[in-house]
Amino acid sequence: MAKAGDRVKVVSVDETYEGVVVPNEETKNLVLKLDSGYNVGIERSKIKKIEVLKAYKAGKKKEIPVKHDKNKPTIGVLHTGGTIASKVDYETGGVIAHFTAEDLIAMVPELAEMANIKTELVANMMSEDMNFAEHQKIADAVEKYAKKGVDGIIIGHGTDTLAYTSAALSFMFEKINIPVLIVGSQRSSDRGSTDAISNLICAATFIVKTDFAGVAICMHYTANDDKCAIIAGTKARKLHTSRRDAFKAVNDSPIALIDYKTRNIEFLKKDYAKRNKKGKAESKTKMNSDVGLLKTYPNMKTELFDFFTKKYKAFVIEGTGLGHAPTNLGVNLKNYEILKDYIKKGGIVAITSQCVFGRVHPNVYTNLRRLSDIGCIFCEDMFAETAYIKLAWLMANYPTKVKELMGKNLRGEITPRTMPEEFLE
Amino acid sequence: MAKAGDRVKVVSVDETYEGVVVPNEETKNLVLKLDSGYNVGIERSKIKKIEVLKAYKAGKKKEIPVKHDKNKPTIGVLHTGGTIASKVDYETGGVIAHFTAEDLIAMVPELAEMANIKTELVANMMSEDMNFAEHQKIADAVEKYAKKGVDGIIIGHGTDTLAYTSAALSFMFEKINIPVLIVGSQRSSDRGSTDAISNLICAATFIVKTDFAGVAICMHYTANDDKCAIIAGTKARKLHTSRRDAFKAVNDSPIALIDYKTRNIEFLKKDYAKRNKKGKAESKTKMNSDVGLLKTYPNMKTELFDFFTKKYKAFVIEGTGLGHAPTNLGVNLKNYEILKDYIKKGGIVAITSQCVFGRVHPNVYTNLRRLSDIGCIFCEDMFAETAYIKLAWLMANYPTKVKELMGKNLRGEITPRTMPEEFLE
Repeated sequence: MAKAGDRVKVVSVDETYEGVVVPNEETKNLVLKLDSGYNVGIERSKIKKIEVLKAYKAGKKKEIPVKHDKNKPTIGVLHTGGTIASKVDYETGGVIAHFTAEDLIAMVPELAEMANIKTELVANMMSEDMNFAEHQKIADAVEKYAKKGVDGIIIGHGTDTLAYTSAALSFMFEKINIPVLIVGSQRSSDRGSTDAISNLICAATFIVKTDFAGVAICMHYTANDDKCAIIAGTKARKLHTSRRDAFKAVNDSPIALIDYKTRNIEFLKKDYAKRNKKGKAESKTKMNSDVGLLKTYPNMKTELFDFFTKKYKAFVIEGTGLGHAPTNLGVNLKNYEILKDYIKKGGIVAITSQCVFGRVHPNVYTNLRRLSDIGCIFCEDMFAETAYIKLAWLMANYPTKVKELMGKNLRGEITPRTMPEEFLE
Repeated sequence: MAKAGDRVKVVSVDETYEGVVVPNEETKNLVLKLDSGYNVGIERSKIKKIEVLKAYKAGKKKEIPVKHDKNKPTIGVLHTGGTIASKVDYETGGVIAHFTAEDLIAMVPELAEMANIKTELVANMMSEDMNFAEHQKIADAVEKYAKKGVDGIIIGHGTDTLAYTSAALSFMFEKINIPVLIVGSQRSSDRGSTDAISNLICAATFIVKTDFAGVAICMHYTANDDKCAIIAGTKARKLHTSRRDAFKAVNDSPIALIDYKTRNIEFLKKDYAKRNKKGKAESKTKMNSDVGLLKTYPNMKTELFDFFTKKYKAFVIEGTGLGHAPTNLGVNLKNYEILKDYIKKGGIVAITSQCVFGRVHPNVYTNLRRLSDIGCIFCEDMFAETAYIKLAWLMANYPTKVKELMGKNLRGEITPRTMPEEFLE
C-alpha cells in the first residue's frame, strides 16, 4: 500500500497518473501531487493498480542559523497560511504548525542576504475562511512589528481573500510609516512554475530599495516570472482562479513594478506616501459585523432586500452598470420602498457595480437618481469588495460619519472624479 | 423658466453647465444633457441663474416608408428598451411608447439598405429591472419571428443585464436555426461617441454576410469604432460601467470580429453552428424562480447560508479562488454542516468563482474536496451569472437531471477541461 510521500504510478479505469501521494484523511479519493504541482483526487473505487516508484524517506530538517546584521535592514514576516506555505505542508506531510524564519530562509535564502528577517505565525489557514477577527490579529501584529522598528513588513497570505485583507489593513492603519506588503502565491513552492519565491523576493527588494510607506500587495504582474507589481491595498482584486498574474489593479495603475532578474524598480505612480523613521503606525482595528454585501441579479426576490435591511445596519449593493438595482418597475418597486424606508430609519446603503471596472454615478439616468434621492451612497470607482470592508470599518470607527466618509477618498480607494468626461473612459 | 428640450446655461453655486433640459419629474434636481452626451443632475437649490440659449421647437416626425424587397434578407428587430433607444427618448421628450421600424431606420438608414426590417416592441425598460418574465417574452418573440422565416434577429437591450438575457436565451433555445444577436449601447445615439449605430450595423452585417446560427451578443470589441465582436451568449460579461468595449468574452474568444468600416468579418472560432433554412427554432422558456445567487465574503454570517438553504431549491455560490467558500474553520464550520444537510435533503449547490476568469476545480485543495464530497457541483469555467441562469433553467426544465447537466457543456458555457495543465493557464 502506498504511503504519504511515496512516488507512485496509479492506473485507474479512466487514466494513468504519476505523482507523490499527499496525506489525506478521506476515504473516497487518493490524492496525488502531480509533477505539474497541482493535486489530483483519484476515486479509490476506480483504481486498478498502484505501483510505488520511490518510497518516501523523511529528510533531515535543515537548521539555518539566523544572525542579526546591524548593517542590514530588518523585515518582519508575518505568516497566515495559504499556498505560499504549501511546500512546507508537503514536506512535513501535514498542515504546518510553525512557520519560522528558518523555514522561510530555507525556501528563499536570498531573503537573508537582503535583510534581517523576523517572523511570526499569526494564523495558519487557507484564506477563504478569514474573518474580521483574523484581519484584526494581522493588524495587531503589523503594529507590534512596526513599533519594534522594522523597516518593512511582508505578510504571507492565501490568495483567495488576500485583497479583502489588504483593504482591511489599508483602512485600519490611519497612520503607517513603513511598507506593509501582502504576498501570496498561486502555485506552491514545490512547482517549477511557483510564484512564491519571486513574489517574496520582489517584495523584499521593494522594501529594501524604496522609500514607499503604506499597505499594498506584491504579486506577479505578468504570467512570466519577469515582473511583480505593487498594487494599492484598496485597489487590488483577484481576477483569475489560477494564473500567476491573477491580481489586477482595478481602476488604478500599479504603484510600481519590480524586475525580478535585474531587481530594478519602476514607479508608475509618484504620489505615494514616503517612509518616515520618526512616523507612527497607528491602527483602529474595530470592524462592525452587522454589515452585508448584496449582489443583484435578474429575478432576485424581494425577500433578499427584506433580509438585508432587517439583519444589517449597513450593506453594499453590488448592482449592475452605473449602479442600478432592480428597484423601478413592477414587482421590483417594492425593493425601492424597502430601501427608502430602511435609509429613512438610519440604515446605510452603498452602491457599487458588478462590472468591477469603471465608476458608478448617481446622475446619468433617472433610475440612478431615484436611488441617490432616497439616500443611497454611490461609491464612485470603488469596487464591491473594498466598499464592503470600508463600510464595516467606518460603521465601527466613525459611526456618525459613515455617509460623509463612504464616498470620500481615504486610502486611495476612490480616484477623484473629473466630471463629466472622466467616467466615460 | 426653462422647459424640457430648451438649450440652457445654468449657473450653480458649484459650477456653470451648458446643455439641454431633460424631462424630469423630480423636484430636487434639474437634469441637463451635456454636449458630452451624459446627463447631469444639478440641485435646484444651488442654482443661481438659468439662461435659455435656444428654446425647444418640436420637429416634425419623419415617416420613412419601408418597402419589402424580396431580394434582400429579412431581419427581425425586437426592442426592449435601454440606452440604445435613448435618442428617441430625448427627442420626444419622454419615455418612448413605440419603437417602430421607422424610428430605427431613421436612426440607422443603412439597415434598410441591407435588409428588410420587421420590428416589434417586446418590452420598454432599462435592463436592471428585467426578470425571468421578460426573458420569456423575448424568447417567445424570437420564436415567433424565427418561425415567420426571418434570416436573423437583432434584440435591442439595455446593457446592464444584457449578458444575463443572452445566457437565458442561449439555454431556452434548444434548437435555433438562425442568428439571434443581442445588441446594446453604452452611449446614447445622440452623442458623437455613440456605439448604438455601429453595433446595430455590425450585427446586421454579420447576419447578412455569414452562415452563423445561435444566440450571441454584438458589441464593441475595442474602445474605438473600428471593430465589433460577436461573443457567445453564455460567455459574455459586462466588465466596465461605461466604456464602449465593456463586454468581454470570459474564458473564451469572441466568435467573430466585424470591421465597421470595411464590413469584413473575421471568424476567430470555426466550430460554430451553421444556419439552416429547414432547421427549427424550439424553445423551452420555463424558469424556476426558487433559485438564488450567493456571493461569499470574509465575515459573512451563517444566517446567509441558513436563508439560502431555507428559501431556495438550488443556488449558485460565487466563492473565492478555485471555488472555495468559508466552510472550514471555526465559526465557518457551521456553514459546511448547513450545506451538507441541504444537499442531503435534495438541495442543489453549484460552485463558481468571483475571480470571474479561470476555472473552479474540486480537487486541488482539501477544502475544495470537502465541498465536492458533500455534493456541491463545480461549474468548471462557467462564471456566476451564467451559472445562475443555467441553474434556474435546468431546475424548471430538467428537474431530475440538474446535477448531471449543470457541470456538462450544453451551449458553450463550459470549455472542456484538459486535466491538469489546462486550468493552470
